[in-house]
Amino acid sequence: MKKGLFIVFEGGEGSGKTTAIEEVYKWLIEEGIKCIQTREPGGIKISEQIRQVILNKENVMMEARTEALLYAAARRQHLVEKVIPALEKGVIVLCDRFIDSSLAYQGYARNLGIEEVMSINKFAIGEYMPDISILFDLDPKIGLERISNNNSREINRLDLEELDFHQKVRDGYNIVYERNKDRIIKIDAEQSKENVIKQIKSILDSKIKSLIN
Amino acid sequence: MKKGLFIVFEGGEGSGKTTAIEEVYKWLIEEGIKCIQTREPGGIKISEQIRQVILNKENVMMEARTEALLYAAARRQHLVEKVIPALEKGVIVLCDRFIDSSLAYQGYARNLGIEEVMSINKFAIGEYMPDISILFDLDPKIGLERISNNNSREINRLDLEELDFHQKVRDGYNIVYERNKDRIIKIDAEQSKENVIKQIKSILDSKIKSLIN
Repeated sequence: MKKGLFIVFEGGEGSGKTTAIEEVYKWLIEEGIKCIQTREPGGIKISEQIRQVILNKENVMMEARTEALLYAAARRQHLVEKVIPALEKGVIVLCDRFIDSSLAYQGYARNLGIEEVMSINKFAIGEYMPDISILFDLDPKIGLERISNNNSREINRLDLEELDFHQKVRDGYNIVYERNKDRIIKIDAEQSKENVIKQIKSILDSKIKSLIN
Repeated sequence: MKKGLFIVFEGGEGSGKTTAIEEVYKWLIEEGIKCIQTREPGGIKISEQIRQVILNKENVMMEARTEALLYAAARRQHLVEKVIPALEKGVIVLCDRFIDSSLAYQGYARNLGIEEVMSINKFAIGEYMPDISILFDLDPKIGLERISNNNSREINRLDLEELDFHQKVRDGYNIVYERNKDRIIKIDAEQSKENVIKQIKSILDSKIKSLIN
């Protein structure tokens, strides 16, 4: 039985990855290819419960490493209950964020160390590394502007204060990219949405054709 | 300012470690030495919430690696909120189970791999490995008999079926001991309670004297 493809969409806020997943999903369905789209916790009860502990506003004492371990735990359960069963049926799984988000946000931008965050995520993921990760690379200033336009509001002081953090996230993603060029494909997310989708379709086309033929 | 000592009590069911902690705690308090006793989740709210997810009877789908990551997360938060602040004040911390329990139970007896469970626990613990781990080594048959005597009931079929598992836990502890003789002290827990306590006091005496003088 053919194994599916595990395709992950990665990038900072406002980089367009969530919109792109929708488009790629529609395209694959139209092509008659079995495909699901998901993002953690993805309706998996145990992962949802873990996410509730992370997001609980009373948990102000939560330490960065505790949080990273909880994200890895929620990731493991979502992988086991949702991603792996689909892949085993030969389905293509489109996932909005996965291990590289943890490496960029927690490992690099939050200073826990990329290698250290990798170690707990390797434990969580086992042999199920993404087949392809598409990195939406974008100047965070443009990303934040896009978000503020979507919400019909001006960029506020807080957004600007956070710009440094989002710049660190972008730098983190690029370090992770340099170390994992075998599975990460970086695309210029400053292009028009149409061009981005076109480029992704062209990247995926050969991979998917070899899968379904 | 002098740093405290982090002393962990490890061993299988019925090995007598919990009773021993009580005795050692009383002894240290009588000697006028600042000391706390704890065990995860130890009243730490975030760790309690994580433990609730682990113990929730509806979570039958919980996978072994998810569980191991959750234990590591609860461990981290208990360490940060309770153990480290005490150690920094120069207090002796007596902890009932810590990293070696995860290595023996999850790593070895549940087949996740000692090295792999070590990797996520190293992330959780950082530089705070126990100064001393006292391993209560005991034939699990004797341990289970002690428990059943305590509960005034006969050993049942289920206990006996589980004997294999508890034997694996003992084997796991002994492998971990062989690899970490620098910090683990193994004691024969088949001795009388009095002799066990006497031996532990003698082990700790010099360590603690060098701390308080």
